[in-house]
Amino acid sequence: MKSHTEYLLFNTKKRRDYINITDSVEKVVEKSRIQEGFVLVSAMHITAGVYINDAEQGLIEDIDEWLDKLAPFGPDYHHHRTGEDNGDAHLKNLMIGSQVFLPVTEGRIDFGPWQQVFYAEFDGRRRKRVLVKIIGE
Amino acid sequence: MKSHTEYLLFNTKKRRDYINITDSVEKVVEKSRIQEGFVLVSAMHITAGVYINDAEQGLIEDIDEWLDKLAPFGPDYHHHRTGEDNGDAHLKNLMIGSQVFLPVTEGRIDFGPWQQVFYAEFDGRRRKRVLVKIIGE
Amino acid sequence: MKSHTEYLLFNTKKRRDYINITDSVEKVVEKSRIQEGFVLVSAMHITAGVYINDAEQGLIEDIDEWLDKLAPFGPDYHHHRTGEDNGDAHLKNLMIGSQVFLPVTEGRIDFGPWQQVFYAEFDGRRRKRVLVKIIGE
Repeated sequence: MKSHTEYLLFNTKKRRDYINITDSVEKVVEKSRIQEGFVLVSAMHITAGVYINDAEQGLIEDIDEWLDKLAPFGPDYHHHRTGEDNGDAHLKNLMIGSQVFLPVTEGRIDFGPWQQVFYAEFDGRRRKRVLVKIIGE
Repeated sequence: MKSHTEYLLFNTKKRRDYINITDSVEKVVEKSRIQEGFVLVSAMHITAGVYINDAEQGLIEDIDEWLDKLAPFGPDYHHHRTGEDNGDAHLKNLMIGSQVFLPVTEGRIDFGPWQQVFYAEFDGRRRKRVLVKIIGE
Repeated sequence: MKSHTEYLLFNTKKRRDYINITDSVEKVVEKSRIQEGFVLVSAMHITAGVYINDAEQGLIEDIDEWLDKLAPFGPDYHHHRTGEDNGDAHLKNLMIGSQVFLPVTEGRIDFGPWQQVFYAEFDGRRRKRVLVKIIGE
């Protein structure tokens, strides 16, 4: 069994942002030289998410509006008693999920049509990390 | 370390459908002869999901109504500017999740009571695939 | 490849409860002596969840209120035709997810800042289990 771990860095200009990280993850897989295995792509923060979906701009707008409707920015969350203002970002993270698992088959990520991996930032403008860890052979 | 990969095929008659795939996944595990490891069951499309829950017909109706309440079919999503009409299916996929991981212990899927694996189709009436990949020993 | 499996037991006094299980999961990893790998932490019941987020009391209250707003306790779910009264607990499980994957790097869980693992009980007052399975080397 081999393993290989890398960390992707983000520091978005906007509070919320959606970044296609498919190429970065593919490069980690290539570098690992693992032929059969799994890659975990996992946000290391609880106010950001990782998800698989389409790289279509209209859809990204839909996702952002939908998350903000179901877990809105603004209300006086209990969490804000700590001085924070990002209660919504924690809920958005729970809504969309913070990690995905990608299968590696014959040295490549075994994607279906239109599947792309996204980093979803819900409380940006600071340094954040995503872990990419692959195990296999 | 051993690995084994198969693809399940679906082509539902209805736009939305919920299919119990527990037996199919168990057969893949059996065929792999892996005794200890993990199985990834992952929709290869961004308008379908995979989840674990109970095979109870009333509950399946509840899940369908609940998903359609929180991510409704019908509205004029930005994504529809591309000519598509399935914006809701993308959001339903994000809501319920597109993959599950099952533990394999002593050659069998280590399920708790009532746990069953479902394929959730949100934009059917075409050929779709689910990847089942097991790694272990 | 090595593997190690344990089961955590719960029997909450309240119907809904949120329990920080980070230390318990870390002890399983230590005991396994695995240096590089993955840990699956997965609820073995379909009316409970496992998630990663902050151990902040206000946030836990926010999460509980938010889940109950989007998947409320009380309505006459179709599932209740079976005599059950826990339809909401099944939906809350689907909403927050029932499993997380943790990376193990150099013998320790590779957490980001504030990341803690929680068991979320949605239909307690009875014996329930969470599987913790680690594979790696």
